[in-house]
Amino acid sequence: MANKYNTVLVIGGEGEKCRLVAEGYGFKDVVTPGDIIKHNAATTPFRKLTPEELANSRERNFDDVVIDAVFVFADSRDWAGDIQIMLDVAMSQQGRLGTRSETFDEGPPFYFSHNDVVWSAAHEHVRLGMGALRRMFEITFRDLTDGKGKLHTHAFGKPQVSTFEFAERLMQSWRSTEHGISGPPQTVYFVGDTPESDIQGTNAINQVADNDWYSILVKTGVYQDGTEPAHKPRVTVNTVLDAVHHGIQREMRKKVVSSLKRNVLGQSECAGTETNPAIVDDDMLVSV
Amino acid sequence: MANKYNTVLVIGGEGEKCRLVAEGYGFKDVVTPGDIIKHNAATTPFRKLTPEELANSRERNFDDVVIDAVFVFADSRDWAGDIQIMLDVAMSQQGRLGTRSETFDEGPPFYFSHNDVVWSAAHEHVRLGMGALRRMFEITFRDLTDGKGKLHTHAFGKPQVSTFEFAERLMQSWRSTEHGISGPPQTVYFVGDTPESDIQGTNAINQVADNDWYSILVKTGVYQDGTEPAHKPRVTVNTVLDAVHHGIQREMRKKVVSSLKRNVLGQSECAGTETNPAIVDDDMLVSV
Repeated sequence: MANKYNTVLVIGGEGEKCRLVAEGYGFKDVVTPGDIIKHNAATTPFRKLTPEELANSRERNFDDVVIDAVFVFADSRDWAGDIQIMLDVAMSQQGRLGTRSETFDEGPPFYFSHNDVVWSAAHEHVRLGMGALRRMFEITFRDLTDGKGKLHTHAFGKPQVSTFEFAERLMQSWRSTEHGISGPPQTVYFVGDTPESDIQGTNAINQVADNDWYSILVKTGVYQDGTEPAHKPRVTVNTVLDAVHHGIQREMRKKVVSSLKRNVLGQSECAGTETNPAIVDDDMLVSV
Repeated sequence: MANKYNTVLVIGGEGEKCRLVAEGYGFKDVVTPGDIIKHNAATTPFRKLTPEELANSRERNFDDVVIDAVFVFADSRDWAGDIQIMLDVAMSQQGRLGTRSETFDEGPPFYFSHNDVVWSAAHEHVRLGMGALRRMFEITFRDLTDGKGKLHTHAFGKPQVSTFEFAERLMQSWRSTEHGISGPPQTVYFVGDTPESDIQGTNAINQVADNDWYSILVKTGVYQDGTEPAHKPRVTVNTVLDAVHHGIQREMRKKVVSSLKRNVLGQSECAGTETNPAIVDDDMLVSV
């Protein structure tokens, strides 16, 4: 990504954090909504930059800037302003702010890292997430271009299989560095609270992976007990601790069966079937 | 309205302004999003009240509050938080915050005073308006209730005919008090920049009114010269000043024709056909 795109607009997060994250990923030229509002305060009629934001935002001449891609990294703190700026870029001539395309099909690609419409927070009912912002952006773009425009949007993060593959590469490298074990774990227990991202993604990578990805749904988050999950987990338990117990017990049973086979039935264990599990908790997944 | 609804939630505007406006209209019990966030800060995970907002917001126990209606009076300053709170109310059992309806069809009515998706501001391109927020609210409600819920939403303001009737009553009362003229103006020139609200509404009241409502579209705002307006005005001119000139010239021509008929052709003028015009500029319309 950092090699493919020179100038990127990053959306979301508190203050300058997402710019720093993007620069940490190797992006050479990172623009924020604050930079755009500093350049033209009329961009967002109802958002004024705070003195701190004004100081952090960078002065530049957007007549000479081509935005090659847009990344929505974290939760937007100003939906109206961020959606407005995303629309301005999407409707532009090839990412040049201030221009308007005649065909509305030449905007840069948009990447969304969080695609859940709702998420489970401290409130008793689920709260709107970046999936809702993405939908609003897409609907408004369609409205404003009379359905003629074309957006180039991509999800990264769950439930995209590439996110799970990235997690597997991370685990493999961690196992190798920390424990000197080569190869991926034989079974990955993936614990999540959202059928539409955690369970869907785990089931999807399980279809294509050589090892076993085992989906566990917990009842302490987005999923509501008693309802029918849109994507079926291998097992549903109450809490993350119950999920860990479930995984350990399942591995223990496998060990007992394997040892019975070896000692009682005299079968020799095949190479590579040694249990070698990993339990991945949703919150531990680095999704970028 | 103020007699019909006891407790109302008002959305939009800077600080406490909309609460004061609503109380000025006679609403007895006015709740703001700030009151709700002060009661439960987890309502909006990414909006914290400023010390000033915290001081102005009112402490109350929302377990005992029934919200009878919601009014979106002015531009929202926090779309994520306001849409979240509107959804919480719309999905509640009869306007009781913190509850969830099983049928999602028992929320209180929602009234929107500004329904334009975009509006013309200082920026070179039109900016998102409260019509876009309304659409996002409606789409998200449909998504979250799997299309089963039912919203009770109402537009007031343009292009609703009742708004134009209200303007006519205001003009009539002003003419009577200030100029001692009784009855409405024979012709009302309505000047606006937005085909979907100004022109549509003027043409609509013209269908039902006894007098003539004459729609004039200007090119200095939302409408883009060279495009096909969704609602056809009687005439399109460059600026508001051109619209005033157009109205005056049209009235002068009518006077000349009328005087020719009387003096040259000897026809007597019929009662009530005396020209008696009013020019209403969009910005002069009090729409609440």
